[in-house]
Amino acid sequence: MLRSLRTSVPAILGFVLLAASLHAQDAPTAILQVLSAQQNAWNNADIVTFMHGYADSPDTTFIGKTIEHGYSGILARYRRSYASHAAMGTLEFSGLSVRMLGTDYAVVTGHFHLSRTQAGGGDAQGIFSLIFQKQTAGWKIILDHTSAS
Amino acid sequence: MLRSLRTSVPAILGFVLLAASLHAQDAPTAILQVLSAQQNAWNNADIVTFMHGYADSPDTTFIGKTIEHGYSGILARYRRSYASHAAMGTLEFSGLSVRMLGTDYAVVTGHFHLSRTQAGGGDAQGIFSLIFQKQTAGWKIILDHTSAS
Repeated sequence: MLRSLRTSVPAILGFVLLAASLHAQDAPTAILQVLSAQQNAWNNADIVTFMHGYADSPDTTFIGKTIEHGYSGILARYRRSYASHAAMGTLEFSGLSVRMLGTDYAVVTGHFHLSRTQAGGGDAQGIFSLIFQKQTAGWKIILDHTSAS
Repeated sequence: MLRSLRTSVPAILGFVLLAASLHAQDAPTAILQVLSAQQNAWNNADIVTFMHGYADSPDTTFIGKTIEHGYSGILARYRRSYASHAAMGTLEFSGLSVRMLGTDYAVVTGHFHLSRTQAGGGDAQGIFSLIFQKQTAGWKIILDHTSAS
């Protein structure tokens, strides 16, 4: 009994590590799907669904010209800055790169481009780094740093 | 024997979790010390020592106006952009906030201010998010996103 236990522990551990490894490989795909869903929501002028990409927490951070904390404030900022379908325009992410930070966190870097009419404010673009955390509800952005490029 | 083993495993696990927790509490202090050392090195016009805060890796990322990868390129950029003691000026970090991302990663947000003479380019300031990784050589920046504020 003890002998068979000694034999099986490394085998079980090996299986767990393999499963964890396969799981980790899936994470970048899951994270990129969150961004794809955000892009689709934005292009449907649906800011509430777009915001599902962010963790609904007072700790969620948005860095633009200032450092702001809190999901509700970030939502309010998007509503204020992009008050119409024309102001939202058509969003496209590009050059996305995912780097895992252990198994439960990751950082994504990339560019965004907003195609807009003159009335909507004209085209806009920038560069970002997003920190994601794996939560019960899936991968969520806990920090968004977006700046001019 | 089996009974005592059953009793001691939770006790040992509890101790390990406690030790891990205490260790994690030390991390923000260690990370802030890296930034303090960087500030001191900068104010001694010592870019090489300042760069010790970054992971010496081709994956280390600096996001300014563009996304650049690689320690040597980041060092070259600092040397180019801050070619004299006057151009480096006096660096001060403020509003530093550390958020742990598990036990081996963390993100630090904050502001910097460069006090410089007119000849040195005048004062400059900005906002940053830094992702740190705990490495054999200590806590190192693996991604620096710095932008105007």
